[in-house]
Amino acid sequence: MGTLSKIYKTPMSLLTDLYQLTMAYGYWKTGKSDTTAVFNLFFRHNPYKGGFTLACGLEYILEFLSNFRFTSDDATYLSTLKDTKGQPLFEDAFLDYLLSMEFNCDVDAIPEGTVVFPHEPLIRVSGPVIQAQLIETPLLNMVNFQTLIATKAARIRQACGNAPVMEFGLRRAQGIDGALAASRAAYIGGCDTTSNVEAGKLFGIPLSGTHAHSWVMTFEDEQKAFDAYADAMPGNCVLLVDTFNVEKGIERAIATGKRLQAVGQKLLAIRIDSGDLAYLSRKARQMLDDAGLTDTKIVASNDLDEYIVKSLQEQESSIDMWGIGTKLITAYDQPALGGVYKLAALKDASGTWRPKIKLSEQSLKINIPGRLQVRRFFQSDELRADMIFDESKSPCSECYIIDPMDPTRRKKIFAKDYETTDLLIPVIKKGRQVYTSPDLTEIRKAAMQNVHQLHKSIRRFINPHQYVVGLEYDLYRTRENLILKLREESQ
Amino acid sequence: MGTLSKIYKTPMSLLTDLYQLTMAYGYWKTGKSDTTAVFNLFFRHNPYKGGFTLACGLEYILEFLSNFRFTSDDATYLSTLKDTKGQPLFEDAFLDYLLSMEFNCDVDAIPEGTVVFPHEPLIRVSGPVIQAQLIETPLLNMVNFQTLIATKAARIRQACGNAPVMEFGLRRAQGIDGALAASRAAYIGGCDTTSNVEAGKLFGIPLSGTHAHSWVMTFEDEQKAFDAYADAMPGNCVLLVDTFNVEKGIERAIATGKRLQAVGQKLLAIRIDSGDLAYLSRKARQMLDDAGLTDTKIVASNDLDEYIVKSLQEQESSIDMWGIGTKLITAYDQPALGGVYKLAALKDASGTWRPKIKLSEQSLKINIPGRLQVRRFFQSDELRADMIFDESKSPCSECYIIDPMDPTRRKKIFAKDYETTDLLIPVIKKGRQVYTSPDLTEIRKAAMQNVHQLHKSIRRFINPHQYVVGLEYDLYRTRENLILKLREESQ
Repeated sequence: MGTLSKIYKTPMSLLTDLYQLTMAYGYWKTGKSDTTAVFNLFFRHNPYKGGFTLACGLEYILEFLSNFRFTSDDATYLSTLKDTKGQPLFEDAFLDYLLSMEFNCDVDAIPEGTVVFPHEPLIRVSGPVIQAQLIETPLLNMVNFQTLIATKAARIRQACGNAPVMEFGLRRAQGIDGALAASRAAYIGGCDTTSNVEAGKLFGIPLSGTHAHSWVMTFEDEQKAFDAYADAMPGNCVLLVDTFNVEKGIERAIATGKRLQAVGQKLLAIRIDSGDLAYLSRKARQMLDDAGLTDTKIVASNDLDEYIVKSLQEQESSIDMWGIGTKLITAYDQPALGGVYKLAALKDASGTWRPKIKLSEQSLKINIPGRLQVRRFFQSDELRADMIFDESKSPCSECYIIDPMDPTRRKKIFAKDYETTDLLIPVIKKGRQVYTSPDLTEIRKAAMQNVHQLHKSIRRFINPHQYVVGLEYDLYRTRENLILKLREESQ
Repeated sequence: MGTLSKIYKTPMSLLTDLYQLTMAYGYWKTGKSDTTAVFNLFFRHNPYKGGFTLACGLEYILEFLSNFRFTSDDATYLSTLKDTKGQPLFEDAFLDYLLSMEFNCDVDAIPEGTVVFPHEPLIRVSGPVIQAQLIETPLLNMVNFQTLIATKAARIRQACGNAPVMEFGLRRAQGIDGALAASRAAYIGGCDTTSNVEAGKLFGIPLSGTHAHSWVMTFEDEQKAFDAYADAMPGNCVLLVDTFNVEKGIERAIATGKRLQAVGQKLLAIRIDSGDLAYLSRKARQMLDDAGLTDTKIVASNDLDEYIVKSLQEQESSIDMWGIGTKLITAYDQPALGGVYKLAALKDASGTWRPKIKLSEQSLKINIPGRLQVRRFFQSDELRADMIFDESKSPCSECYIIDPMDPTRRKKIFAKDYETTDLLIPVIKKGRQVYTSPDLTEIRKAAMQNVHQLHKSIRRFINPHQYVVGLEYDLYRTRENLILKLREESQ
């Protein structure tokens, strides 16, 4: 049983914008339902002004699409919708059509945990335009959010180096699924544990957690609270030391630590959740060491993100483990990715693919037409460049790839000098799932390896170097010609 | 059937932080499970640097708590958790205890759609400490997010005046529920419609939506696309005019509008989704008017929020309806509320309530102890002040109320000069729901009225006036004495 069906009463095929249904109705009315279309899902900027993005969300999508069908309940609801004249918005025959619709698109996608860049299609859907259109919104919902969170986690993982990172954002997350899907994405991006027990149960993510201030407040004094906690859970003892006064709290935690030592156990860690974390962690380290508790770790939390972690490291704090909540689970400094899903080609009556483009006064908003694939070039395990090309033609093996946003930025690629891999792989064929997601731990491992295949200049937080992504020369020319032709027609 | 159970496979009692379960285990081990405790859920700052907040999320919480129980599946999962020594984290007898646990707390809450302020308890839970503790995280998850979004929507509603506001954030929302719960909260806050069809079905929110750029791109040219759309849906015709060139798009929309007029229908609106919305909307208005389509409205969208709406109004744009997505659905400029849930009193062996407090070096983080209630004072339908008091004593009728963050800010209240209402009402008694949420439209209406009972200086976006919220004099003194005593003990 898939994840979505463990959480949700699936299918949830009305989880889409009304305009997808009105357009579907229009396609049906105009006899265009079965026109074969290609849509590409992509984003235009790496989040957080960063140099890379980590793809995430495919497992949800596979399950969503595998269950995609309209129920009689859905049709009943749709039959109640009225237009402004009080007429039914949809004819009954269209609702019957929806009820009998079987999802039979082809879907190609970049696996979860792959580093990706602006303009690259993360997902490509080919099939009847009516179906490919209807699924736009749920695909964007799932990919935008999960990719955003996985990327944030990968940045935090980098800041924290090899130190354990504990995600505990549930209380501040944007809703129930805003927590569950995010805990999964955060684990893929590099977190070690989550506090979210349901996420642990659903996804097998390791859990962590000990106690809150309220534990201490229910006892007569802090020492009794610490001792009682240690007695109850000698093998899981992390003490929160800032309920009243941090230094006093550390002294008391040390006393409890010594009691634990006396019975062959140990105080695993103390946690500091407020105040000057740099100063207090150094102070705590010294106090713990002086007391012989050199093995006891120090956990820090309190609205941390990659920047604060870096800053605390620069201040020579003595923090061994990081607890990260709000700033990760909501992607606080950029809470939406802004990915889009654009029609890129249509098959005409003769069976020939016609590339499609939308103009905009903002060049950035003009899409890349065609049935796109991404070829990644690498050398000695370092990623060097990505080429976006139209699968309808075989790509050149020795040519320029051109930055779609700045055609003066181009790089000559001699394919023979590189190892290559094509990033999009078939995941659904004619509506049937042909790809199974790896175990979550495998995805996570691959993600962390993939991030490390990027040059460190691309991974840095401030003004990262821009990874080379270009359009294959023929695709670049096709796009340029289409834009010029349409601009001329629009005068 | 409640909303949660329509979406989720409830109960979801593991949707909590692991530390709630380890603390529960500790309470159980130390024989404290049935100690009666009071927890208050509150926040410390209005979001968006605003002057008010709109409470939301109670309906979800009522259903969550009504279904709160652990399943054998949950217990099986919990039995697999190990401590660092490889020992089971929880004894079997504790898991049996969880399985037999029946939620029997009392819950008092401020109804959804009520304006609330920092430090006021939105929810108060009284009951066995083990139970009241376990529900902390899901309560925070639901209230934090939904309150955040309802407040954002109320701000956008204010900026838009009486003009229709259409929420269409699904594609950028933080997960599935990050969209569904948010569409509901946005409606409560003042949006008129949502694009999210599932939210329409679940909550009865009116829907809106027409077509995307892809509709236009599947036709030979824009004119044919517009005409086909109008033919298919003559009573729901809003045309998106910026697929190629906005002015040309408006010309073609006008041509379609005239065709509609000829058959007794009309072009309801055009939508502009890019470019200079102020200039283009004025231009569109003129072109539509010149063509006699004076009834055709202009819809604007493109990353709008309350500030951009205000700015467009100041630029004398000609926009009749607003489409709001990302900035609302993710609360983009502050994506988390930061509400907390703090132990505030314990009943001792003699049955006497003991107020409880947590210290912090940040004064803001010291909680308000006691079994709190909020009394609201108003005159001629304008809200004047709120008094937080401890229900264990009857509040003074003529005394100072004191700002907990700045005791020099105080206001003398003569209760006889005001009408009053106590905001927290019983919603669950001994685990049984005793309150039914009003219809969503009722909540929305009450919310909009309540916001308008605030003086406009409190509603403004920039440096709003601070609404008077104070601690009743006795409560203030109790808190002060507790802090001083604890600070002394912690030296």
